[in-house]
Amino acid sequence: MITRMSSLFLRTLREDPADAEVPSHKLLVRAGYVRRVAPGGYSWLPLGLKVLRNIEAVVREEMDAFGAQEIQFPALLPKEPYEATNRWEEYGPNIFRLKDRKGADYLLGPTHEELFTLTVKGEYSSYKDYPVTLYQIQTKYRDEARPRAGILRGREFLMKDSYSFDLTDEGLSKSYQDHRDAYIRIFDRLGLEYVIVSATSGAMGGSASEEFLAVAETGEDTFVRSTESGYAANVEAVTTPVPAAQPIDDKPAAQVHHTPNTPTIETLVDFLNATTDRKFTAADTLKNVLVKLRQPGKDWELLAVAVPGDREVDFKRLEAAMEPAEVAMLDEADFAKNPFLVKGYIGPGAIQANGVRFLADPRVVTGTAWVTGADKADHHVVDLVVGRDFTPDGVIDVAEVREGDPSPDGKGVLVAARGIEIGHIFQLGRKYADAFSLDALGPDSKPVRITMGSYGIGVSRLVAAIAEQSHDDRGLIWPRNVAPADVHVVVAGKDETLLGAGEDFAKQLSEKGLKVLLDDRKASPGVKFADAELVGIPTILVIGRGLKDGTVEVKDRRSGDRVEVPVAEAVDHLVQVVRG
Amino acid sequence: MITRMSSLFLRTLREDPADAEVPSHKLLVRAGYVRRVAPGGYSWLPLGLKVLRNIEAVVREEMDAFGAQEIQFPALLPKEPYEATNRWEEYGPNIFRLKDRKGADYLLGPTHEELFTLTVKGEYSSYKDYPVTLYQIQTKYRDEARPRAGILRGREFLMKDSYSFDLTDEGLSKSYQDHRDAYIRIFDRLGLEYVIVSATSGAMGGSASEEFLAVAETGEDTFVRSTESGYAANVEAVTTPVPAAQPIDDKPAAQVHHTPNTPTIETLVDFLNATTDRKFTAADTLKNVLVKLRQPGKDWELLAVAVPGDREVDFKRLEAAMEPAEVAMLDEADFAKNPFLVKGYIGPGAIQANGVRFLADPRVVTGTAWVTGADKADHHVVDLVVGRDFTPDGVIDVAEVREGDPSPDGKGVLVAARGIEIGHIFQLGRKYADAFSLDALGPDSKPVRITMGSYGIGVSRLVAAIAEQSHDDRGLIWPRNVAPADVHVVVAGKDETLLGAGEDFAKQLSEKGLKVLLDDRKASPGVKFADAELVGIPTILVIGRGLKDGTVEVKDRRSGDRVEVPVAEAVDHLVQVVRG
Repeated sequence: MITRMSSLFLRTLREDPADAEVPSHKLLVRAGYVRRVAPGGYSWLPLGLKVLRNIEAVVREEMDAFGAQEIQFPALLPKEPYEATNRWEEYGPNIFRLKDRKGADYLLGPTHEELFTLTVKGEYSSYKDYPVTLYQIQTKYRDEARPRAGILRGREFLMKDSYSFDLTDEGLSKSYQDHRDAYIRIFDRLGLEYVIVSATSGAMGGSASEEFLAVAETGEDTFVRSTESGYAANVEAVTTPVPAAQPIDDKPAAQVHHTPNTPTIETLVDFLNATTDRKFTAADTLKNVLVKLRQPGKDWELLAVAVPGDREVDFKRLEAAMEPAEVAMLDEADFAKNPFLVKGYIGPGAIQANGVRFLADPRVVTGTAWVTGADKADHHVVDLVVGRDFTPDGVIDVAEVREGDPSPDGKGVLVAARGIEIGHIFQLGRKYADAFSLDALGPDSKPVRITMGSYGIGVSRLVAAIAEQSHDDRGLIWPRNVAPADVHVVVAGKDETLLGAGEDFAKQLSEKGLKVLLDDRKASPGVKFADAELVGIPTILVIGRGLKDGTVEVKDRRSGDRVEVPVAEAVDHLVQVVRG
Repeated sequence: MITRMSSLFLRTLREDPADAEVPSHKLLVRAGYVRRVAPGGYSWLPLGLKVLRNIEAVVREEMDAFGAQEIQFPALLPKEPYEATNRWEEYGPNIFRLKDRKGADYLLGPTHEELFTLTVKGEYSSYKDYPVTLYQIQTKYRDEARPRAGILRGREFLMKDSYSFDLTDEGLSKSYQDHRDAYIRIFDRLGLEYVIVSATSGAMGGSASEEFLAVAETGEDTFVRSTESGYAANVEAVTTPVPAAQPIDDKPAAQVHHTPNTPTIETLVDFLNATTDRKFTAADTLKNVLVKLRQPGKDWELLAVAVPGDREVDFKRLEAAMEPAEVAMLDEADFAKNPFLVKGYIGPGAIQANGVRFLADPRVVTGTAWVTGADKADHHVVDLVVGRDFTPDGVIDVAEVREGDPSPDGKGVLVAARGIEIGHIFQLGRKYADAFSLDALGPDSKPVRITMGSYGIGVSRLVAAIAEQSHDDRGLIWPRNVAPADVHVVVAGKDETLLGAGEDFAKQLSEKGLKVLLDDRKASPGVKFADAELVGIPTILVIGRGLKDGTVEVKDRRSGDRVEVPVAEAVDHLVQVVRG
């Protein structure tokens, strides 16, 4: 197939768009791949649509390869199924809602768990029908508060979403693993550098939820990775290694100190180091952070979280750990209502004496001794020992994770990185099957509740993620499997001989099955070279001055390497380069 | 590719769905191609999606073949461009409108003229850039008052819409013809029986608008066709042949008759035939129908339409003829305000004396004599002659069209038929270019206003249109180019030998590049045969009792013809049948 730039609906731009901050956004607009139509709404111009379709084809192939079956739902969906699962409310302002001419409520689908569940329920009834995995590649809608970075976070976007339906937990594990393997093949074929991070701490069971993050400085997601192993995780999912318990007997007795003017951990440590003969650090202190939380449908209740004084509580980790409960900081009214909380001097004693749930960091193990509040203004207690002087009600792993912390797998230390979420696999379990009573009739004629997995790939976002990873200051550099063409034939001149040779090469390459972008415009070689760099086809064939001596130039867009090739060998050479 | 029915997400139904009236709706649901999700909203199950994608591929190929370039817009569109063209208002309740979280107005795109125009304006500036034709294959939304017949008239549907942009009227004519030719190739390849009807009367210039209608009794569109030529047209577009003018001199003088108790044309004709020595028919009478019309932005005004008394005014034709003005019947208040209108006895005299515009049917030519109202209760006038006693202000061709009327091309007479609109091509002209000032800078540096065409194909509707034309009482019969598989291999039995042979045939056929649907279920042959008829793959390979004697059976779904084929020749035979 030959695409001629003389008639291609493409106008490249010299300037970055004013609203663009990240490279993929700038370059995809400058190179004429996408255009902004509305906040978070983009049109795909011809080259952009080709890239999108190439990615879609890879996703489809790998989904089909493991037996997933493609179907397609409407995007305009009735309210009722989403009310049944409470998501109509839960989504808050994040979905688009509308009414039809009769006043009936609809939404634009953000994900389709409800519809898939109902559809399987509509068709299947026996245990013999299962397992089944269904998917769609479909336009999705979310009313993002802050659409950003072009197609990276849009309000209308293309997504592959799939759902597995199994009779057993083991079946779900297999379906999950099938997806995980397929995602690895997909992202490998797309030439992405990515990590697979645990998205939950394991409270829901090991690999119940993992995210695929394309590594990119401009990514919205932060994660940590080990310096020495393949370990990578969302900060929310990092587990702190639990130190061994210590003997209690050798610890000195707890002792209350008058510690005036020590409003911070730092001033407290300085005061103790100046007034005692011991050397304390912030890590020896225990900070008792009071928050309130509300289980769905319940009232607010207090919760105390104890972390070593050298670390803050990471609120995102706390929220993740407490899900589905809502968490909030205390306000002055809360303190006023609970006068046993002596601000700045809260200790385990008053917390537990007043029936407040008290959870502590994994480092707070039996036998460890802590400096902490004495529940009295200007007083702290030293050598308060776990298992002797207090015992937390449980463990909570929500202290901030820092670069240099040991990797949970015991190999190396953690460093921070950023990524773009390109895939998410998740063992949903029976939430939706319960909501809609999705059962199979078992061999014993008893109903078996189905267990589900939910799996997503941001197909249009992948275009941006790839561009984010694969570009230089002159333009885009497409991996071969997604490039809108295989070879960019640049006719470096306007004379008929060169144009004729360009047409001839394009025709020969096309006959070999290659997709050719032919720059047959009446523009200067400089303009054409700059556009070729910007547009980012991986291989560039330059037909220029060398032609009269029987040579053309083949340039690799990524490395910049150029080779002179005799005209007679050029087609075979290019086929070899493209096919590998 | 092999699709196994043992794991395919497909459950056929024995009963027609309760809400289905037309065959395509019944069969597409029963055969498991689509499922209803909401009024006018359907999900595509695996086989249905394959048919849809096959059709989409044919449309794409033929669009690409003549140089149209594919792009894609969001479906969620901001209000502003549609306000600029007044369509935000004009669509009334027929589009879906919604607000985002900030309260900004959006719509779900019904068609995309505005966006295409703005996009071309954004990229192109010089006359050298033109012409260009862009298209998209995209989900569209219309809030139909009465979604019906499954996917035939949905509220969410897949459409190919394209737009041509030309510098000149001649260019537009060529773009229009390119589309017309491509549409013919598309609908031919899809195996459809269709007619191309003029959608307008020619007032906008010859072939300015044509519709492609798939001939189907269940179609919503009526059209007329000639018994003797290829002429076909929407009823709105039929032109009445104009009879020759007649001499005036030989006509008797007009005479007012007292005609008591003649409230209808029929009673009037009977009365005159009884009280005079002449023989009148309803066609000799002239019915003056008063309506009111309102040009955009203007006040209502009266309009009189005169048609022969044997015909009604066709309100749809009247609306089409008066566009963009709005037309309505008079109510009692209107008559009260205009006492010169003597209901039941209105004649040309009072109409014209009171300054009401008076348009007459093309048959009302100079020299014709009419029986009509005398503007006085219980009185009619006979022998009111055109050109002597009255002269209409103009011609209007809005009388009902009837079977047996002469074909406008002079060949044969008209008969009525019904069809499904599957395509529409339309010379828009400069309406949208004017709205957005889409100009090209000409060679003389003067701006040239661009002229546009708009072209649509209802891609998802085609699935229903094909099913509507191609089925029998046992099920669907897909034309080869759209069938979800090439061969349906039915293993007629449960024993391992037959199943093994089925797998083996499926594998061999797949290796030859054929798409195979393999019925490897543990069901009875009867169930499998019935499902094969219902599902409608054009060629069925039955592996059954004959296998032990070295034969299999190849059945043609459409004709029902069966041939026994030796096992060794079966694969080549099938390749031959499929490839033709």
